[in-house]
Amino acid sequence: MAKLVAVDVHDVRFPTSRELHGSDAMNPDPDYSAAYVVLRTSDGPDGHGFAFTIGRGNEVQCAAIRALAPALVGRDVEEICADLGRVYFDLVDDSQFRWLGPEKGLMHMAIGAVVNAVWDLAGRRAGLPVWKLLADLTPEQIVGLVDWRYLRDALTPEEALDLLRAAEPGRAAREERLRTHGLKAYTTTPGWLGYDDETVDRLSRQAVADGFGQIKLKVGRDVDDDRRRLGVARRAVGPDVRIAVDANQCWDVAEAVRWVDRLRDFDLWWVEEPTSPDDVLGHAAIRRGIAPIRVATGEHAQNRVIVKQLLQAGAIDVLQPDAARVGGVNENIAILLLAAKFGVPVCPHAGGVGLCELVQHLAMFDEVAVAGHRPDRVVEYVDHLHEHFADPVRIVAGAYAAPTAPGMSAELLPSTLADYRYPDGPVWAGSPEPAGTVG
Amino acid sequence: MAKLVAVDVHDVRFPTSRELHGSDAMNPDPDYSAAYVVLRTSDGPDGHGFAFTIGRGNEVQCAAIRALAPALVGRDVEEICADLGRVYFDLVDDSQFRWLGPEKGLMHMAIGAVVNAVWDLAGRRAGLPVWKLLADLTPEQIVGLVDWRYLRDALTPEEALDLLRAAEPGRAAREERLRTHGLKAYTTTPGWLGYDDETVDRLSRQAVADGFGQIKLKVGRDVDDDRRRLGVARRAVGPDVRIAVDANQCWDVAEAVRWVDRLRDFDLWWVEEPTSPDDVLGHAAIRRGIAPIRVATGEHAQNRVIVKQLLQAGAIDVLQPDAARVGGVNENIAILLLAAKFGVPVCPHAGGVGLCELVQHLAMFDEVAVAGHRPDRVVEYVDHLHEHFADPVRIVAGAYAAPTAPGMSAELLPSTLADYRYPDGPVWAGSPEPAGTVG
Repeated sequence: MAKLVAVDVHDVRFPTSRELHGSDAMNPDPDYSAAYVVLRTSDGPDGHGFAFTIGRGNEVQCAAIRALAPALVGRDVEEICADLGRVYFDLVDDSQFRWLGPEKGLMHMAIGAVVNAVWDLAGRRAGLPVWKLLADLTPEQIVGLVDWRYLRDALTPEEALDLLRAAEPGRAAREERLRTHGLKAYTTTPGWLGYDDETVDRLSRQAVADGFGQIKLKVGRDVDDDRRRLGVARRAVGPDVRIAVDANQCWDVAEAVRWVDRLRDFDLWWVEEPTSPDDVLGHAAIRRGIAPIRVATGEHAQNRVIVKQLLQAGAIDVLQPDAARVGGVNENIAILLLAAKFGVPVCPHAGGVGLCELVQHLAMFDEVAVAGHRPDRVVEYVDHLHEHFADPVRIVAGAYAAPTAPGMSAELLPSTLADYRYPDGPVWAGSPEPAGTVG
Repeated sequence: MAKLVAVDVHDVRFPTSRELHGSDAMNPDPDYSAAYVVLRTSDGPDGHGFAFTIGRGNEVQCAAIRALAPALVGRDVEEICADLGRVYFDLVDDSQFRWLGPEKGLMHMAIGAVVNAVWDLAGRRAGLPVWKLLADLTPEQIVGLVDWRYLRDALTPEEALDLLRAAEPGRAAREERLRTHGLKAYTTTPGWLGYDDETVDRLSRQAVADGFGQIKLKVGRDVDDDRRRLGVARRAVGPDVRIAVDANQCWDVAEAVRWVDRLRDFDLWWVEEPTSPDDVLGHAAIRRGIAPIRVATGEHAQNRVIVKQLLQAGAIDVLQPDAARVGGVNENIAILLLAAKFGVPVCPHAGGVGLCELVQHLAMFDEVAVAGHRPDRVVEYVDHLHEHFADPVRIVAGAYAAPTAPGMSAELLPSTLADYRYPDGPVWAGSPEPAGTVG
């Protein structure tokens, strides 16, 4: 009988600030990091998961994951995998941990890391990639994985069942299409705020050559700068490739409307994170103010309650869930169901460390078994740091190829764990502090 | 020249779960705890602050505060005290820490603990209690302490200035009244869910005898139980003392409306935390559904952006800020200004460990310099754990007496730090795990 024997936690950091990869209006110098967790079992495969952070505080994120270990060690692995809601419900229902959010921030991300690791483990034991494990569940099983608390005014379990049942007949055909064509991606690679015009131009052209139909640029530090960079990008990609922009929360409501107005002549596909991720009513006001340009958000939506309200308030055109911000696969199932109910396309956030690897599974599950095929679903792609993963994403002709390896593609290579260990791994030797310390 | 030489962090826990003090519908067995911080200076007084938690995870809260230390140690104390926005702005603007919220949860509470400790320090150095330090600031100085980002669609700095200037002429008279009569309190002492009827009856009668005009009962686990306990309490206090109820987030929207409907014959003053603290639209729907009974919330409002929306959406009748949940005194100034703009009374959350001690300063500042005198402002009071503080609150005839000692009343006694230290203090010896471990 396999037991969960240990919860190993690793503080892994990449010195991305040295090259300004990942720079945007709010995050000038991130050091992409993972608070990485391995659920070690007494026999058979382990489960891998992580929270994504951008540097300082990753040690606190690791401490939060370690705090969950007593609730996990000693558990029966088969029981966990037979009831994939159990660990999630136990952790979010623990009242003492709950106080530290509730269901938000560092503690919730720790729960998300563990829950995703449980799914990775379950996929490995079943011999299936997690998208397929999910897509083979019955509607009843899927509904049973969700915490329905606080959701029923927008979506009841019965409505969710109806929606999932309606999608059942098409599952096989959509899975076939997914295995053949993959899932459409867009790329943020050309768009970081720290890049000069030559880099924006070169990477934008490369994106088109690589088959992407959409790119994204960071904006929001200086409007004239944004206009110049958008001009470079629009000339590089031509009129038919979509350009989205991402303000990373830097504006107030009125400021967002004014700023976007100055960018209208570049045919923007969506405006992402125009203001605080907590500001449901603010997003709704911005959407009214910049229509018909779309509003997108979700990567920092702390939980399903915020997502519910974004949809209820008609605040967004595009929902961008993150695989590692909320309470893991289970809460993201709730989020996919909410989006399907409201008819809003799910275009997941990715990038960072391994977010592409994780979130592809959710998007593919959405395609096969929840919302079904939507031409307007595109999954973010950034070509950083994939070489550190045991089962990296594969992009073919601008689309995510369906993973075939068992699990959730979450495993970092042993050499990466050794080399990028903070603060004592060789990459950090002689550079004990990440860039841009406060104060 | 005084320097900040060290940031000491203490994990302090009280075994309150042994007596079911603090038990409610969502928190059956809290161990009231503090992640306690001392800003040690090279000469003169130190600054004291803390985050309040309810047990497990307090070590993670401590780790979060420790992560902020490099941004603080070495700073000039006079500079800090001359510019009481500086530390707050530096910490919330740090992009790498910000990612862990943003501005919410464990990391934000850590910032709040440090910012409150800075105010405690400033009060001590000025020889003033913090309420008086605040109430002596000019409108311009007060507005300069606030992070206006994400607020301007509801309240501009100019509107805040107008509001503060309009309150200036009455400051002296209100301060005089405050020093004479204190600030009206209400008590939650009789109302914990774990108490039997005899205890509810006895403590309710005691509350009236002690001069309180309002008590609060926890509800939400069983509606017949709630009816019985409300009957006991109503008989004990008579028809003229107000009874509020607190559901501690346990209901969905429709469930809240149905449940409160079953309690209408007890003349409820307000219904507190009926659902998720993140659910602005849910609170608005509940308020429409239970009118004219008031809706109150705020203790778990993660930051000023949520408070802004609660007010914009007309979701609440009573705002209940917590001194240690958001980014400290500075963010609470923003919250007081928002409430004043929307004309909603501020009835702060207290209880826990030292929350009464901290929040009285904010309520008194609100009375003297922001919203002015409001007969409907009552500050929560619970008579637990005050004996552990160097300058405990004083309740006289059902009112908070204005503190006179310098600082923010945040200092725990050295004996408490030694006795309740977790996990190795003598109170915890032989009981290494807090009650009710997960799983």
